[in-house]
Amino acid sequence: MRYAVLGTGIVGRTIAAKVASLGHEVVIGTRDPKATLARTEPDGYGNPPFAQWLALHDRIRLEAFADAASWGETVVNTTAGAGSLQALEAAGATNLAGKVLIDIANPLDFSQGMPPSLKPVNTDSLGEQIQRAFPDSRVVKTLNTMNSQIMVDPTRVPGDHSVFVSGDDPGAKQAVTDLLVSFGWPESSVLDLGDISTARGAEMLLPIWLRLWGSLGHADFNFHVAGA
Amino acid sequence: MRYAVLGTGIVGRTIAAKVASLGHEVVIGTRDPKATLARTEPDGYGNPPFAQWLALHDRIRLEAFADAASWGETVVNTTAGAGSLQALEAAGATNLAGKVLIDIANPLDFSQGMPPSLKPVNTDSLGEQIQRAFPDSRVVKTLNTMNSQIMVDPTRVPGDHSVFVSGDDPGAKQAVTDLLVSFGWPESSVLDLGDISTARGAEMLLPIWLRLWGSLGHADFNFHVAGA
Repeated sequence: MRYAVLGTGIVGRTIAAKVASLGHEVVIGTRDPKATLARTEPDGYGNPPFAQWLALHDRIRLEAFADAASWGETVVNTTAGAGSLQALEAAGATNLAGKVLIDIANPLDFSQGMPPSLKPVNTDSLGEQIQRAFPDSRVVKTLNTMNSQIMVDPTRVPGDHSVFVSGDDPGAKQAVTDLLVSFGWPESSVLDLGDISTARGAEMLLPIWLRLWGSLGHADFNFHVAGA
Repeated sequence: MRYAVLGTGIVGRTIAAKVASLGHEVVIGTRDPKATLARTEPDGYGNPPFAQWLALHDRIRLEAFADAASWGETVVNTTAGAGSLQALEAAGATNLAGKVLIDIANPLDFSQGMPPSLKPVNTDSLGEQIQRAFPDSRVVKTLNTMNSQIMVDPTRVPGDHSVFVSGDDPGAKQAVTDLLVSFGWPESSVLDLGDISTARGAEMLLPIWLRLWGSLGHADFNFHVAGA
């Protein structure tokens, strides 16, 4: 399978490396590949410059959003939530049409102070916005409720814990579930919340996630639905 | 200890019965006791009329909000979130002053369609609204993230699962933790999220709770923070 992973941050890198390690072909998409590769400073979260990371992953290529999306059979959105719609517009509706579009982004809003709040929230979600903006794509919201290292290695957290999927297309949710199982998730840990409007609930886990991160002092935790 | 439980719905009844069974004195508060006792129909959730329930719990009395709050040493808000501030106004700021005020309510907003959304949300919470409106009370948000039967009998859900506390007063949070332990919660399952603004995160669990209730088909589940 050919995966286009949109976004060069830690989530994009982690997903891309995992998918490549499973034998898939991977292209990472970015707005301006030359600008991304020219950066020599760590990003805002202290991650090493992208070019340095890419040099260690010679099976992964970097291309512009549209080239990556056009080439990929499945597209993964790992861009920052506030810029996701713009990034997907740059990827192009025709390049996304008919494809499974896995949305891992969270619509964090830093304009109301710290910790960030969400925008949209409550009566809408980023997952729904993306599905509305790209009605020919098969959007599945998933994996946005945990640290990126846990996404691709659920054994980092002891015991059972959950990953949610939301989407309108049952076939797309099954394909994403299969991908999650290939990442190491027990199928019983994948909880189908329902249609894409259930992405509201998954995105609204972020505020308590951020507070738990603060109170626990680490990010190696995840939500489990006990009794599910 | 004397507990005033404000609200005659299923949460208030469940908490009142549990607290009474532990040997505490309990008064339930309502807007108009005569009107509450005069009802002969089940409530909107199909629970039997309050008078019928009260007849089975002869150690529990029913009084007006202000009388209950004045008498109680600890006050528990189990009223519907949309009416909580009004109910607490009726209880009276002076009757609540200095006391631990346990807030279990969720600010469900049914005006935007089903499933309900939240109001306030995201940059505010009902817990914070109550603390601001009653600055001399020691508000602790807790237990709002699960079905009422689990609140007082955590063994209904297999395995470890979590209950959150949010509040500005460490002594009040410890008192609430002690009460939760007396309900059967292991102290290690009580997660202190931080100050009362962390009630935003606890309240924002409701949307995914409601969707899980729908997709699982039962309410005997609870959130667990694995790896905490």
